[in-house]
Amino acid sequence: MTDIRPNRLLDAIDSPDDLKGRSRAELKQIANEVREEVIDVVSVTGGHLGSGLGVVELTVAIHSVFNTPKDKLIWDVGHQCYPHKILTGRRDQMRTLRQGGGLSGFTKRSESEYDPFGAAHAATSISAGLGFAKARDIQDEDSSVIAVIGDGSMSAGMAYEAMNNAGADKSRLIVILNDNDMSIAPPVGAMSNHLSQLVSSRPYRGLRRIAKKVVAPMGLESPARRAEEFLRGFAMGGTLFEELGFYYVGPIDGHDLDVLIPILENVQAMRDGPILIHVVTQKGKGYAPAENSADKYHGVSKFSVVTGEQSKPKPKAPAYQKVFGQTLTQLAEKDDKICAITAAMPSGTSTDIFAAKYPDRHFDVGIAEQHAVTFAAGLAADGLKPFCAIYSTFLQRGYDQVVHDVAIQKLPVRFAIDRAGLVGADGATHAGSFDIGYLGALPGLICMAAGDEAELARMVLTSLEIDDRPSSFRYPRGEGAGVDMPEILTPLEIGKGRVIREGTAIAILSYGARLGEAMKAADMLAAQGLSATVADARFAKPLDTELVDRLAKEHEVLITIEEGATGGFGSFVLEYLARSGGLDSGLKIRPMTLPDVFQDQDTPYNMYEAAGLNARHIAARAIEALGRGDIAEIERLARA
Amino acid sequence: MTDIRPNRLLDAIDSPDDLKGRSRAELKQIANEVREEVIDVVSVTGGHLGSGLGVVELTVAIHSVFNTPKDKLIWDVGHQCYPHKILTGRRDQMRTLRQGGGLSGFTKRSESEYDPFGAAHAATSISAGLGFAKARDIQDEDSSVIAVIGDGSMSAGMAYEAMNNAGADKSRLIVILNDNDMSIAPPVGAMSNHLSQLVSSRPYRGLRRIAKKVVAPMGLESPARRAEEFLRGFAMGGTLFEELGFYYVGPIDGHDLDVLIPILENVQAMRDGPILIHVVTQKGKGYAPAENSADKYHGVSKFSVVTGEQSKPKPKAPAYQKVFGQTLTQLAEKDDKICAITAAMPSGTSTDIFAAKYPDRHFDVGIAEQHAVTFAAGLAADGLKPFCAIYSTFLQRGYDQVVHDVAIQKLPVRFAIDRAGLVGADGATHAGSFDIGYLGALPGLICMAAGDEAELARMVLTSLEIDDRPSSFRYPRGEGAGVDMPEILTPLEIGKGRVIREGTAIAILSYGARLGEAMKAADMLAAQGLSATVADARFAKPLDTELVDRLAKEHEVLITIEEGATGGFGSFVLEYLARSGGLDSGLKIRPMTLPDVFQDQDTPYNMYEAAGLNARHIAARAIEALGRGDIAEIERLARA
Repeated sequence: MTDIRPNRLLDAIDSPDDLKGRSRAELKQIANEVREEVIDVVSVTGGHLGSGLGVVELTVAIHSVFNTPKDKLIWDVGHQCYPHKILTGRRDQMRTLRQGGGLSGFTKRSESEYDPFGAAHAATSISAGLGFAKARDIQDEDSSVIAVIGDGSMSAGMAYEAMNNAGADKSRLIVILNDNDMSIAPPVGAMSNHLSQLVSSRPYRGLRRIAKKVVAPMGLESPARRAEEFLRGFAMGGTLFEELGFYYVGPIDGHDLDVLIPILENVQAMRDGPILIHVVTQKGKGYAPAENSADKYHGVSKFSVVTGEQSKPKPKAPAYQKVFGQTLTQLAEKDDKICAITAAMPSGTSTDIFAAKYPDRHFDVGIAEQHAVTFAAGLAADGLKPFCAIYSTFLQRGYDQVVHDVAIQKLPVRFAIDRAGLVGADGATHAGSFDIGYLGALPGLICMAAGDEAELARMVLTSLEIDDRPSSFRYPRGEGAGVDMPEILTPLEIGKGRVIREGTAIAILSYGARLGEAMKAADMLAAQGLSATVADARFAKPLDTELVDRLAKEHEVLITIEEGATGGFGSFVLEYLARSGGLDSGLKIRPMTLPDVFQDQDTPYNMYEAAGLNARHIAARAIEALGRGDIAEIERLARA
Repeated sequence: MTDIRPNRLLDAIDSPDDLKGRSRAELKQIANEVREEVIDVVSVTGGHLGSGLGVVELTVAIHSVFNTPKDKLIWDVGHQCYPHKILTGRRDQMRTLRQGGGLSGFTKRSESEYDPFGAAHAATSISAGLGFAKARDIQDEDSSVIAVIGDGSMSAGMAYEAMNNAGADKSRLIVILNDNDMSIAPPVGAMSNHLSQLVSSRPYRGLRRIAKKVVAPMGLESPARRAEEFLRGFAMGGTLFEELGFYYVGPIDGHDLDVLIPILENVQAMRDGPILIHVVTQKGKGYAPAENSADKYHGVSKFSVVTGEQSKPKPKAPAYQKVFGQTLTQLAEKDDKICAITAAMPSGTSTDIFAAKYPDRHFDVGIAEQHAVTFAAGLAADGLKPFCAIYSTFLQRGYDQVVHDVAIQKLPVRFAIDRAGLVGADGATHAGSFDIGYLGALPGLICMAAGDEAELARMVLTSLEIDDRPSSFRYPRGEGAGVDMPEILTPLEIGKGRVIREGTAIAILSYGARLGEAMKAADMLAAQGLSATVADARFAKPLDTELVDRLAKEHEVLITIEEGATGGFGSFVLEYLARSGGLDSGLKIRPMTLPDVFQDQDTPYNMYEAAGLNARHIAARAIEALGRGDIAEIERLARA
């Protein structure tokens, strides 16, 4: 598939304009070529494969019918946008996908005018689309707004909020529901059941019938129209979308351009009210290894196009996620009150390990972080011991619930905060940058961060034992530090850090998984005869003030380092010292946090390099503050 | 109504147990007495009147049928819980409602075992209820879980997330939808239309018919049952709740105990699957002035029971809210791109002033903060100038959207952050404590806080002119400082504070509306010959580093003060100083923030007194840090 055929039509497509006026046969061929290109690209770059393959025909159909970028096309999440990128002038950059300096794995406003609204988190497209629709109306423009949203995103309350608002409105808005019965894991919930029922109870519509239907004037409450609605209700029940005020079309075959294009043409001509087109697609469509895989090759490493075999590098240490999942499962053997909650990420968070053994105490609530948190609070209020495993970036969705339902009520919900810090290829939208600050500000909530995977295991136990208030522990994505795991797990003392290496001039106080870099920095400093203490704070809240006092008093320089933004751990240390007079007579204290920018994707190492949070930066900062030592020497060591 | 009749039945009700075995006639009389008591109580205390009056019969019915507290009764929001409090042993404390040391205006776990889950923010009850239901199932208990949620809360995505989860489940859960066609403002959106349609198209069910219906075994897919479903679909369309997997009962008259009690008895006997009972009530029921008022006496001051006239103290200065609403409206005269967005608080935020003049550019999206923020981002992406006016505490609901849809994309959404700081009678759940930190951490987002109402007006204009990135300005609830308003509005210089009073020994750097207290503190210090500079930072981001440097260099003591939690403005000042070496040779810097507790309701003044953020505390802190002056003298001045 990598050979370039001379008569490829795709070579002539520089923008969607080049799709206009093409015959149906040509468009079908272009779709096939786009599919081959997506497979080829992802085999080289890794990334999201299944989602893109599922919407190849839909993408071609939309771009051939609508006038993007004047018409606004908004892809929800953006996992599925590779065909869109190929058709909108970014084909030659596709092999830089998700790499440093390359194309984003999602849609991105700064990347192309064909991306009117960027995405990555789920269920934002209808809200944004309604914004565009209203802006168009207010500015007396004439254009279409199309939001394409997957069925998996339909469990998110945000999608409902937007539909509730749009459905009561007469704004022209097209929502295409891409129903592939899969987001990352199979979707859950009543909406998913509702969709399955629609698909199974209604025959895929034939072109003629549906075309006739959608060209009928909207909103006209003629007796005939009313009768048809009743008949439909009688035969199949109304759809939830109709009850939310949308005109519902579907379900239709999302891989058949002969159905898709006429329907989109008809819908484009409509001028009134929101429309929902229910399109059924197959994730991984057209690539056998993906079609046959359980997760439909949602996110893949580089792979062989022929065999589909992925080349995953062998991990040197167990992933934090696995350590979390295994520890929780192990603890549950002796405690039948432990529950695990995930918001559609059983595999990503490894709660699936727990689910395999304790299915009745595992709850995948779908993409629904608000509900996940308060549901966990309800479990805790009735005496269970819930662990709510959510990525740092997604917990932002449940922030109010953490404040209002958990923290104010002092309910012992345990938050396992996954993907803390920079995450690599998923870039800025997935970075877990803010949780130290936004959780640390909450009265009574205990905040921990794991310095390595053994620490994480102990924090799971510690959290379990904290039964009178909420607690949290954060840990990064991926491989641990490779330390030995404790044979017998013991809990941590609340609010106590540990000193790992004793020194004299410099103290490095690490919160979380920069600990390894802190140790390396101490080595670099030692090579210059500069003695550094390295401590692991373990807790941001309650802070180990005794340790902070000691480090401040016994060292010339105190560096705090964390995998998070300003207003976090370093701030808590500074505020404590300021309040207690610890800064009155001078302290060379240097908080090291993520920089005040949203960092684009790269390898995690490179991202931390750009953030200035690797060992050499710590050592350099210490030397700079101390006014002794040679920064150039540090650079030499770092390159060695 | 204040006279105590000797034969009152209510006097004999110490707990819901005392309702058991009562005749229908007695229960009706008790309901009437509860209604009188609620009116009488609120006439003295002020508070939420209309909501409670609407659910008097429902409350009596629930407590007479179910076995609370073993059965879990969860009131959504909690505005409507006064009758519940009266019946659950708190009658003698009702006249302390919403006052310092008194009963909370909402449900609260720490207040009573009859409040299994506290509330105040909308739409949490179904999630919490499902948590209780699952905990019951896992622990093999037998009890009912009843969540009572208003139709206004139904625009919140969280309610949908919970229903989506519950509806796919077989857990026994009773949701009572209290449909009064009002929350605070009339509800908006498709769901609200759907409910109206249900009420208008279905006759209120007669007792016999509905009782027959609900005692039929659940989940039985007999041909007869199926036929009935079809018939119902044919006649009226399915309900959205049925499509979400709930068994729907209703609509029923929520003021008729002869309907309510048998239905609840039947529902109590059911053991499978979630049930939604659609109860229609009238907000303000039984009190003519409330029934006839537009907002149904949602929240009232003390009032005369006879006339309904409320005794509102005359404000000395315009409220911040009015200044915001008026300024925005005035600016919109010359800028037709300005839009205003509110999440169900047009009156609370004063966007109703804007709406009256520019209805097409005003969007009340319902209780739906996630959608509100991303909808605003969509408007901004297409060139409009949206002002998103949301209370600080409710913006927590849209935090991820601020990060993901606004800040990462650098879209110029303007956040008007209302109810910043402590809010008084609504207590901990409504305090705007965390936004300085959770927004200040976001790259590129400009953060302002108004020192007085004139400053607020300038910040509205400043925000309007910031067209290349997001911005925010926070301001407290209620009356301004009484300063003169500028005749000609001019924008602020970005990232620049102002020095209001020049002094020598002490610098007080205020962010936001503690400015007046800072000035008073300077007076108190001056009385002891201690000279204080007072500066208004105006911006937390970008920070006026020049001003911070100057204040740090030229004073022995630097106090920062803000109406927010740890990790906010004071932290940003500290982090800046630490990074730039400004702390190396010593600085007596004292950040003053809200304390690390959730503060219960009281007057705002008393709450700030408890928080230690009033003038006397600032002065005392300065003296303490300075090591000169007399704190006792400050106390004397404060009492004078």
